[in-house]
Amino acid sequence: MTESLERRIADRALSYVIDPPSGVDPVIEFSSPGELQALFGDVVSLGFDAESGQHDDDALVGAVDLVIKHSVHTSHPRFVNQNFAGPDPVSVVGDWLGAALNTTGATFEAAPVFTLMESAVLSKLGRVAGYVAEGADPLPTLPPGLFCPGGSTATLYALQLARHRIRPDIRRTGATGEQFTLFVSDAGHYSASKSAALLGLGTDAVIKVESDELGAMLPSALDDAIAASLDAGHVPFAIIGTAGTTVTSAFDDLNALADIAEARDMWLHVDGCYGGSALFSPTERHRLAGVERSDSFVWNLHKMMGMTQQCTALLVREPEQLESCFALKADYLFQPDKLYAEYDAGDRTFQCARRIDVLKLWLAWKHHGDLGFAARIDHAVARAEQTRDRIAASAGEFVEVTGTFTNVVFLWVPPALRPLGSLSELAAETHKALHELAPRIKAQMQTNGTAMVGFQPIGGLNTFRLLYMNPAVTEADVDAMLDRIREYGLAATNA
Amino acid sequence: MTESLERRIADRALSYVIDPPSGVDPVIEFSSPGELQALFGDVVSLGFDAESGQHDDDALVGAVDLVIKHSVHTSHPRFVNQNFAGPDPVSVVGDWLGAALNTTGATFEAAPVFTLMESAVLSKLGRVAGYVAEGADPLPTLPPGLFCPGGSTATLYALQLARHRIRPDIRRTGATGEQFTLFVSDAGHYSASKSAALLGLGTDAVIKVESDELGAMLPSALDDAIAASLDAGHVPFAIIGTAGTTVTSAFDDLNALADIAEARDMWLHVDGCYGGSALFSPTERHRLAGVERSDSFVWNLHKMMGMTQQCTALLVREPEQLESCFALKADYLFQPDKLYAEYDAGDRTFQCARRIDVLKLWLAWKHHGDLGFAARIDHAVARAEQTRDRIAASAGEFVEVTGTFTNVVFLWVPPALRPLGSLSELAAETHKALHELAPRIKAQMQTNGTAMVGFQPIGGLNTFRLLYMNPAVTEADVDAMLDRIREYGLAATNA
Repeated sequence: MTESLERRIADRALSYVIDPPSGVDPVIEFSSPGELQALFGDVVSLGFDAESGQHDDDALVGAVDLVIKHSVHTSHPRFVNQNFAGPDPVSVVGDWLGAALNTTGATFEAAPVFTLMESAVLSKLGRVAGYVAEGADPLPTLPPGLFCPGGSTATLYALQLARHRIRPDIRRTGATGEQFTLFVSDAGHYSASKSAALLGLGTDAVIKVESDELGAMLPSALDDAIAASLDAGHVPFAIIGTAGTTVTSAFDDLNALADIAEARDMWLHVDGCYGGSALFSPTERHRLAGVERSDSFVWNLHKMMGMTQQCTALLVREPEQLESCFALKADYLFQPDKLYAEYDAGDRTFQCARRIDVLKLWLAWKHHGDLGFAARIDHAVARAEQTRDRIAASAGEFVEVTGTFTNVVFLWVPPALRPLGSLSELAAETHKALHELAPRIKAQMQTNGTAMVGFQPIGGLNTFRLLYMNPAVTEADVDAMLDRIREYGLAATNA
Repeated sequence: MTESLERRIADRALSYVIDPPSGVDPVIEFSSPGELQALFGDVVSLGFDAESGQHDDDALVGAVDLVIKHSVHTSHPRFVNQNFAGPDPVSVVGDWLGAALNTTGATFEAAPVFTLMESAVLSKLGRVAGYVAEGADPLPTLPPGLFCPGGSTATLYALQLARHRIRPDIRRTGATGEQFTLFVSDAGHYSASKSAALLGLGTDAVIKVESDELGAMLPSALDDAIAASLDAGHVPFAIIGTAGTTVTSAFDDLNALADIAEARDMWLHVDGCYGGSALFSPTERHRLAGVERSDSFVWNLHKMMGMTQQCTALLVREPEQLESCFALKADYLFQPDKLYAEYDAGDRTFQCARRIDVLKLWLAWKHHGDLGFAARIDHAVARAEQTRDRIAASAGEFVEVTGTFTNVVFLWVPPALRPLGSLSELAAETHKALHELAPRIKAQMQTNGTAMVGFQPIGGLNTFRLLYMNPAVTEADVDAMLDRIREYGLAATNA
């Protein structure tokens, strides 16, 4: 008997999870859009015709094989391209079970077990962050936060909570033209500006505060910026502290920010999308000292902790505010006369139906325990330290530019340009040569499938970034990635 | 050799997908929060201790079995509780493969195949909706829309696009205090108000327009409401037409709304979260006549089409506007010097990293073809028609109150109250008895696990709603659900 299509696809997915590409396998079988179109065209065309027919199982399985072959292998030990990688296999199958059960997280009625799991996980995260005291209810009816579809959305909600605290009428009357301002470091995430645009605050409301050479906000600059905003007649209402910037993984001094927020009576939101997970490591959690004083804190467990996309917790210090900020009490959706409706989370947030994001995290945490979660963080930091050591020992071949925690930002210097000298005094043509080199090396890594390493401009100069949270990365992989950069760099500069 | 934890969980999930609970199985093994806590406590406690240890595989598999047993079985043929149900098994395993590959939909670099699949599916949806002409590029670099995490978020984005068209400076400067207004029927979804609150428009900006007895907006009332808003010095900027209301599945007359939107130079957004999928059926698509004239159109494929949570497409008639409305061009994330960066969708939306929602839809559509998608819609409508016939033949035992398309809203009338007479002239105690009966019957269905059927107040009177999109529902299941309502109703009124 032939196996069902579902089983054949599921088998392939499971094999991929249990035995993902690694070692000498390519991290990506790179193809152009036109090449992909041709490859699929031989099996099941990517596009749809005016009348789209049914494809047989063999063709669809062939397409699935192409999907797998030509996707980026984010669990590959040489994928260090972005601030997620290496999904936890237990998380993956937890995600699968949630999808199989396909319900919504909005009500106890539709999701009795998952409603309690959200309560359990949010309570635990709240305790880890210091939002809730140890000894607090491990299964509260009103947990200290909620799950969101991603970090940007969580920051959007947090800023709405912040505006709601200072001007509760705006929810009903709309913005009055008063000029609100919010403050984030100039190394912070662009979701602050995207949120300000959506909220009707305007991107001008986002004051980007100077940061130090690592990317941590300068508290004195923050205080000056707030004072200047007040002088201009504006209404400073929120500070976003960043715990782990995208490029350098810098951590703002959250205690200093909390002092200012308290003195100025402003909302402190912490963007810990990336670095929040440092809290799991006893040796790294000091980086977030003061987070327990913030009003809201977003934490993407799909980044460092390897949960599948997406698993975002927004912690809120006063969760009672969620209802006053978001609830509309639509009687056709949230009926108080239903059983255990007091657990319903649906009206405490913006979304209506929500995918189940909690099961995978609950399972992974129960599997790995606190110690396993800590080990994942410590492994990542160790790889970064190894990279820094290797760069320091390279006698100027590699030059570390910036970065901390898990992020190493550096240049590879062609032999003709060594020693490079001070970055701030580079000759224009040296600057240009280095700037154009990174995309060429990256394109070579991509098309050869040997590694995926990110680059970005720092002060107008494209620099590589190795950032670690992928548990598959070994010491040998770090060396191999640096070797590939050298190899393609030499080829590009000798060509 | 013992199987790995991942395989054991995956096997259970796959068995559930291939052979879900049905027939005499309960649709839910109902337990209270305290009972669930006790059941899990015997295996793996739901909550987390101050120090959370590692649980062994057997315990975790035991917990997984409890998760399955005590979750709501949305693919069960007697689950008609909400406007999603019965996930398509191909969609489920497509979702799984996307999770296994765990990447983000933001860039071609991170998701080459999925970027093209999004283009393909959005192009096809755009053609089905009439946004794009047949013969248009089946794989456009700039597809006519984007994927969003749910319908509320899509409506939020659409209203931001609408505001941006009329006042492009607000994105930068923030709202000026000008009073904008938007219009939706009084049977429309509450996400209009939630969006208005978040956008800084305020819930007062949402003018709820009178609808007819089925729940379709009265176009003349809309035009009057806009005129009144103009007279008050407000700025009417958007109309939300509803294609499939939550309670009655009513469809607004989109051509009439488009006429008004054109005459008034307003944005027309169509909330087709539920009913958009009627477009797949040649016999039902007339309900959305005029949708091709709208400016934006949200369509939840995770509702009628059985994609897993979530699969939301926001179609946009002028997709060039997405970039001008949303892009921030963060150079550390979207580098134009990367290969094929012109395909990157990440900066055309609000979210940064996005879960892959397209693969499951692409696979399901290639599997079922247009005809299979049409059959799913026609099956749902046939079950609703059967329900109406049964009610009409019940000699006053069941009374249809409202509903169209797939939704049947009705009362069960206890023998002592038959014949019920006109609903608008019910005696106060009759009204009270009927109002209190629905929650009691519902609670009995839940605790007995025999069916999950929704209820909601209509004119202050709790009424049942059978809404169909679950392909597992047979004619016999419809009869069985009505029988259970009678059984529990008789027991409740004789007690």
